Amino acid sequence: MSLIYTIDILGTFAFAISGALVASDKKFDLFGVLIIAFVTAVGGGMLRDILINAHPINWIGDLNYLWTIFFAVFLTFLFKSKIAYLSKTLFLFDTIGISVFTLLGLQKGLSFNLHPIIAIIMGMISAVFGGVLRDVLTNKVPLIFEKEIYASACLAGGITYLIIKELPISDNLNFIISASVIITIRLIAVKFNLELPKVKDDIFGK
Amino acid sequence: MSLIYTIDILGTFAFAISGALVASDKKFDLFGVLIIAFVTAVGGGMLRDILINAHPINWIGDLNYLWTIFFAVFLTFLFKSKIAYLSKTLFLFDTIGISVFTLLGLQKGLSFNLHPIIAIIMGMISAVFGGVLRDVLTNKVPLIFEKEIYASACLAGGITYLIIKELPISDNLNFIISASVIITIRLIAVKFNLELPKVKDDIFGK
Amino acid sequence: MSLIYTIDILGTFAFAISGALVASDKKFDLFGVLIIAFVTAVGGGMLRDILINAHPINWIGDLNYLWTIFFAVFLTFLFKSKIAYLSKTLFLFDTIGISVFTLLGLQKGLSFNLHPIIAIIMGMISAVFGGVLRDVLTNKVPLIFEKEIYASACLAGGITYLIIKELPISDNLNFIISASVIITIRLIAVKFNLELPKVKDDIFGK
Repeated sequence: MSLIYTIDILGTFAFAISGALVASDKKFDLFGVLIIAFVTAVGGGMLRDILINAHPINWIGDLNYLWTIFFAVFLTFLFKSKIAYLSKTLFLFDTIGISVFTLLGLQKGLSFNLHPIIAIIMGMISAVFGGVLRDVLTNKVPLIFEKEIYASACLAGGITYLIIKELPISDNLNFIISASVIITIRLIAVKFNLELPKVKDDIFGK
Repeated sequence: MSLIYTIDILGTFAFAISGALVASDKKFDLFGVLIIAFVTAVGGGMLRDILINAHPINWIGDLNYLWTIFFAVFLTFLFKSKIAYLSKTLFLFDTIGISVFTLLGLQKGLSFNLHPIIAIIMGMISAVFGGVLRDVLTNKVPLIFEKEIYASACLAGGITYLIIKELPISDNLNFIISASVIITIRLIAVKFNLELPKVKDDIFGK
Repeated sequence: MSLIYTIDILGTFAFAISGALVASDKKFDLFGVLIIAFVTAVGGGMLRDILINAHPINWIGDLNYLWTIFFAVFLTFLFKSKIAYLSKTLFLFDTIGISVFTLLGLQKGLSFNLHPIIAIIMGMISAVFGGVLRDVLTNKVPLIFEKEIYASACLAGGITYLIIKELPISDNLNFIISASVIITIRLIAVKFNLELPKVKDDIFGK
């Protein structure tokens, strides 16, 4: 569990950096960058906790999220041009973070006795809503609606977790296998630029 | 009550189709379409339940909303061009849905012992917030702020319901009368292209 | 406390006017203006109360907020062109409102036994989130992310309040001193057009 907590914090760190980079690219001031980094990093878990009435919500109940975000923004301010060279490392953190966020959210949903499909949705909300908030607040159409099979990877990992949970396999091992499913799908999707199908035949006649 | 529940589900279906059409018109992928359909259909009731602390919130407490949304998105993917021909049917569902959402939200507010004016606001939030979310997430100025006397119809229906409630008339009959008020006003408003007054005299001198 | 409550209502009034002016400038109809005025005025306290699970939330528990907002929108409709001449008065109300919202939010956070830094964040959310919502709903990049050291003033005032709280000084006096810090910083920042530093070196090579 300690390993998972560490990865949770690393994922939070990667999400915060991603938010800080987008915000500073938009010429936001220090507070704007901090807010965007914050909502990107904890927005998903925050919405999940509000929806399932889990108080205190994530960042109120554990200050380590806040310190991690402050640290990430601090680093972004000091080393912005350097961080660009670390984009692959960050992408890896980000991908690992997404997998952990998905499974932690799913586990939390199950521990609240939610229906498995609702628990999977809670996992997906935990993983992707921070990025949606980041995009809405910076006035862009959320990336997730247009590209990458980001959410599909989380869905596949969540389903994997629920299936393996019925087998005589330890929860830790299940966590690692399911996280690997998410990470693998995402890496493959990005590498080969895979996309989900779109709806054809625009009804407005364009 | 069973009739009202059926109409609630039909309204959810119409809202989900409306969200799915907007999202697919924006070239969102399958997940994007699903998310927009989802928030359009249950966003209003979700916000209402969070505001009045009614847990489990709507779609967590009743999975039928989810199945309805999945089915609506599935149909949109299969028959998008056909659905365009059904726009009048959908508009009717949508209008009936709005009226039912308003009154169910109002009733829920009253059952939580809220002040009648707060209960009316809860009804209106139930009816219109899904559309607001749809528009914010697809990066448009919410339609409701600019057109149609959508919200006024809900308000009029809500007030009607509260007045009749004081009379010796059964709750079911009251529901039908008040829903008819909302439906009638909306149909008339759309037919004659009625609008609410706007504030004149732009202070910025344009 | 009665004085603080009066200022709270005056601040709500100023925020509502500010929302109503932005919305009417955007040609929203009466309902649109009402909604924007509403979220601008109570959005911050509403989010705070949802986050810390303080039910009934602000405007549900005290109808005076609603009446104040209705009155502000009513005045905006009647006297829009005149209100432009009052911009300095409104700016003063707004600034006083921000200071009171910050400190009331902070006090509420402390009364819920939150960590001081979380309580300060609650104060800042109370003060600034209404404006963020206003901007998101009118499809603009939130002002706070780009200009003014608005949030920094709230932060400084919050820290002042927490420090003085440890001293043998009455809470009312502390409130006045800390509010003055916020008001002074904001007035100076606006007068001299101060800004927070921005992140340099766009990583995308522009």
